[in-house]
Amino acid sequence: MNAYSAIVTKRDTRAFAPRPVPDEVLRRILQAGRMAGSSKNTQPCRFVVLRSPERRAALAACGDFAKHMPDAPLCIAVVLTPGGGAFDAGRAAQNMMVAAWAEGVTSCPTSMHHPACARETLSLPADHHVAIVLAMGYPAATGNDRPGRARLPLDGYVHWEQWDGRRE
Amino acid sequence: MNAYSAIVTKRDTRAFAPRPVPDEVLRRILQAGRMAGSSKNTQPCRFVVLRSPERRAALAACGDFAKHMPDAPLCIAVVLTPGGGAFDAGRAAQNMMVAAWAEGVTSCPTSMHHPACARETLSLPADHHVAIVLAMGYPAATGNDRPGRARLPLDGYVHWEQWDGRRE
Repeated sequence: MNAYSAIVTKRDTRAFAPRPVPDEVLRRILQAGRMAGSSKNTQPCRFVVLRSPERRAALAACGDFAKHMPDAPLCIAVVLTPGGGAFDAGRAAQNMMVAAWAEGVTSCPTSMHHPACARETLSLPADHHVAIVLAMGYPAATGNDRPGRARLPLDGYVHWEQWDGRRE
Repeated sequence: MNAYSAIVTKRDTRAFAPRPVPDEVLRRILQAGRMAGSSKNTQPCRFVVLRSPERRAALAACGDFAKHMPDAPLCIAVVLTPGGGAFDAGRAAQNMMVAAWAEGVTSCPTSMHHPACARETLSLPADHHVAIVLAMGYPAATGNDRPGRARLPLDGYVHWEQWDGRRE
């Protein structure tokens, strides 16, 4: 899939087929996360890969809206090391999700509302935290057709040279 | 360019040729930003496009490491509306930078160390702020060959099922 198509057709969906994600596809997804740039090249992200059903269920208990995680054959926790910021986590996560989608693997970022739970479940050092968990898998045949809220038109996103307050 | 190649070969560089970025390429870059998913589909990002040399120079004064911005024919300020988080800004920014790179346009995220300066320069509402400015343009023939700090190997990023403390 070309880059533009992969980027603009990627949707966050959370209904997964049980078919596992092959190791070679997983390797490309992780490599995409690794190659994301970061502030001053501090490389603050680490990735904890969860494929065991028990581990995914345990981590799902740390999020308030994570019921889809046990059904996702692959979860990747994006961990921030000390000093790392959410902007860099977003860059790495988006790289992984777009690379996954280019291989037909859909994904949904999942927040951990209970950070201590997530840290303990993953045995993280005390000064590390989970920025997000990416639930991933091939799409289920049904269940991904929620209409969702439509995107604003492009004109609603873009201002020229400076903010146009008349448009708010 | 295929998605995986665009993602893994994208580097943050800051030496630009003066050649302008065509409108049609800019439109695809902005569309890539628009289509990034966001937390609960809140769509918290807005994009202020700066092509005027005077406007780029004015905004560059709000960052401590922004001397490359006046040389970038295109700057896109990623603005967060109230409640928006840096993770979602990172997703939108990465989409735009990868879409740009797929068209041969390089980029560098640039921090605004003086938020009030950036807000005033862009005439933003008081409850909005600039998450990052993306300086963009076709690469200069020279000046992008800084060796930089090497990436950790993939094994340095990835842990399996839980954190492996022996590797720190």
